Amino acid sequence: MTEPAPVFTSGIDHERLTSQLRFVLEVDKLKRVLRRSLLVDGARRENSAEHSWHVAVLARVFAEYAPEGTDIERVVNMLLLHDIVEIDAGDTFVYDSAAVDSQAERESAAADRIFALLPEDQAVWARKLWDEFEERRTPESRFARAVDRLSPLLANWHTEGTLWQQFRVSKSDVLKNVKLIAEGSEALGAYALALIDDAERRGYLSRG
Amino acid sequence: MTEPAPVFTSGIDHERLTSQLRFVLEVDKLKRVLRRSLLVDGARRENSAEHSWHVAVLARVFAEYAPEGTDIERVVNMLLLHDIVEIDAGDTFVYDSAAVDSQAERESAAADRIFALLPEDQAVWARKLWDEFEERRTPESRFARAVDRLSPLLANWHTEGTLWQQFRVSKSDVLKNVKLIAEGSEALGAYALALIDDAERRGYLSRG
Ligand SMILES: [Ca+2]
Repeated sequence: MTEPAPVFTSGIDHERLTSQLRFVLEVDKLKRVLRRSLLVDGARRENSAEHSWHVAVLARVFAEYAPEGTDIERVVNMLLLHDIVEIDAGDTFVYDSAAVDSQAERESAAADRIFALLPEDQAVWARKLWDEFEERRTPESRFARAVDRLSPLLANWHTEGTLWQQFRVSKSDVLKNVKLIAEGSEALGAYALALIDDAERRGYLSRG
Repeated sequence: MTEPAPVFTSGIDHERLTSQLRFVLEVDKLKRVLRRSLLVDGARRENSAEHSWHVAVLARVFAEYAPEGTDIERVVNMLLLHDIVEIDAGDTFVYDSAAVDSQAERESAAADRIFALLPEDQAVWARKLWDEFEERRTPESRFARAVDRLSPLLANWHTEGTLWQQFRVSKSDVLKNVKLIAEGSEALGAYALALIDDAERRGYLSRG
């Protein structure tokens, strides 16, 4: 862990600011967590920090496709925080079933450690948002999950399925993702389905 | 420009969705814009997409140091969009005065092109937010600027002024940045000043 500079600023609650700085410095490490997914131009794999930014932008741009009354600010906050656990737990490739099995436990331990760096009230806020994202019971968490899954789907189509071929991902594998997208947004789910049908026609998906 | 997949989804305004996808695919390029600033661990330079994520998180965590009544949701939206112009205009190093002179014109042309990819109503929303950020007249834009400047300052301190030495950045140069931070947040400005004083004592700043 990176310890904040030992400086004292008069007029500020020193312990509180130090906790906040510890968190802010720690989460910088998310920039070094590499995902499987590629950039849209295929140049390299993307990291989880820039991915988090991209999906936050998607949530804003596609807000109108969330169920009526969805609190988009909450969705954006969830997306800003959702991958921070990967600093300890690493990125879990959605098509790697062994890794997916141990994912919940590894990520929960990471959430215990990292969000607790924040002052108590903010730690509770962040942890609740992350739990909500994981549990997928609210419209906000379902919509957040939908854009989180849509973003790599776009990159996969635009890189002509490079990753799908490499990891032998078939249409039925991808359709599980499409289902998660549809659960969060009917419109984005329909678009994702059309995209996958098109990808299949073009031979981007693995045949087994 | 990356053209969206030629797929048609029934029940969705095709032209509108296509515009939104064009924007979302285009801004993915922000992941390839390298800034001068380093990661907190000094491993490599950071890119503008992951930087945008980091400052959005800072805005949330440090929200209490914004002037009372500051709309943090607006701040976060500004920060998510603020660097997108760099896709065309490139990153401008704050201590490169020749580049800073031509920055406004280059970035304004970029904003004209990139935000206009969105459907009209969203293009207007995004452009207004970006103009607000640039003009620094509202508490929201000043606070957004403050965290935008604080983040690389932290990285500079934690990398023992590597960049300050490399580009011969002196204390008086950095103090202009501290002024921008103080304009957005009294508390964060005071902290930044304490950090720079400490950096000077440690010899992290260039002496000329
Ligand atoms: Ca994710």
